[in-house]
Amino acid sequence: MANEELLCTVALNSWKLTVGRFSQTLAAFTDEQLQKQVAPGRNRLFYLLGHLTAVHDRLFTMFDLGERLYPELDEHYISNPDKALPDPVSAADLRNSWTEVNARLIAAFDRFSSQDWLKKHAAVSEEDFAKDPARNRFAVLQSRTNHLSFHLGQVILAKEK
Amino acid sequence: MANEELLCTVALNSWKLTVGRFSQTLAAFTDEQLQKQVAPGRNRLFYLLGHLTAVHDRLFTMFDLGERLYPELDEHYISNPDKALPDPVSAADLRNSWTEVNARLIAAFDRFSSQDWLKKHAAVSEEDFAKDPARNRFAVLQSRTNHLSFHLGQVILAKEK
Repeated sequence: MANEELLCTVALNSWKLTVGRFSQTLAAFTDEQLQKQVAPGRNRLFYLLGHLTAVHDRLFTMFDLGERLYPELDEHYISNPDKALPDPVSAADLRNSWTEVNARLIAAFDRFSSQDWLKKHAAVSEEDFAKDPARNRFAVLQSRTNHLSFHLGQVILAKEK
Repeated sequence: MANEELLCTVALNSWKLTVGRFSQTLAAFTDEQLQKQVAPGRNRLFYLLGHLTAVHDRLFTMFDLGERLYPELDEHYISNPDKALPDPVSAADLRNSWTEVNARLIAAFDRFSSQDWLKKHAAVSEEDFAKDPARNRFAVLQSRTNHLSFHLGQVILAKEK
């Protein structure tokens, strides 16, 4: 494998591992337990699941992979803080959305070459990308893996000791 | 910049950004506040600072960068859970250790070429590395960036709202 492909494979493995850990952690909570907060006065597990599903769903658009699946989640789980609006979906439906979004993303990422990862993402202009080629899809993958790890660290706190 | 160098630069930027965010978050707590737990019954900020300093300090050895600086932290902040042992250092000293370890690591990483990142790390055997070249230093960087993000997500919860 060429060096640049190997680097992309390592980073994608890290994404898959983190998505897998988050899914596994979620599976240990009942639907009722998803109403728990990660700490007193902080986000509910349900909100974080909605938030991460929405943020990952946006990657379809950012990476020119076609239409995203659940744009209606943004208002509830990105634009507004927890409990500002009622949850628009059931726990079962939200779990399914999480699973579907990530399965489809991983299927797409598995087909990416290093050249695909080095392309600009849709949220940066051609001009800015020409000035700074580090603003590529690979940088977004790094950022989103960290974002997921950040919230995974919180969700873990709601588990029974 | 060659593609493989660009990929390494992007990943290193992500490491630096996360270390910077953690440092900034820490700076917002007084020494007394470092005794706060991230959630009821969970790790203190002090413990997590010790834990992350020790885990990062181990990278000197893993990457053949010479002797690590604070091996004595491991017993308190890796081998044992929070509150099993008294803290062996003051908050001021621990903050300084965190800063020193990370500054030295970043100085070393800034000199790494992509070839350096693709080398095996010290915790994998030559034989295992030959079978799976993805077990390289770059994979460790990915893993440690995620580990730091995971605990950053927890530390943030102790901030006043």
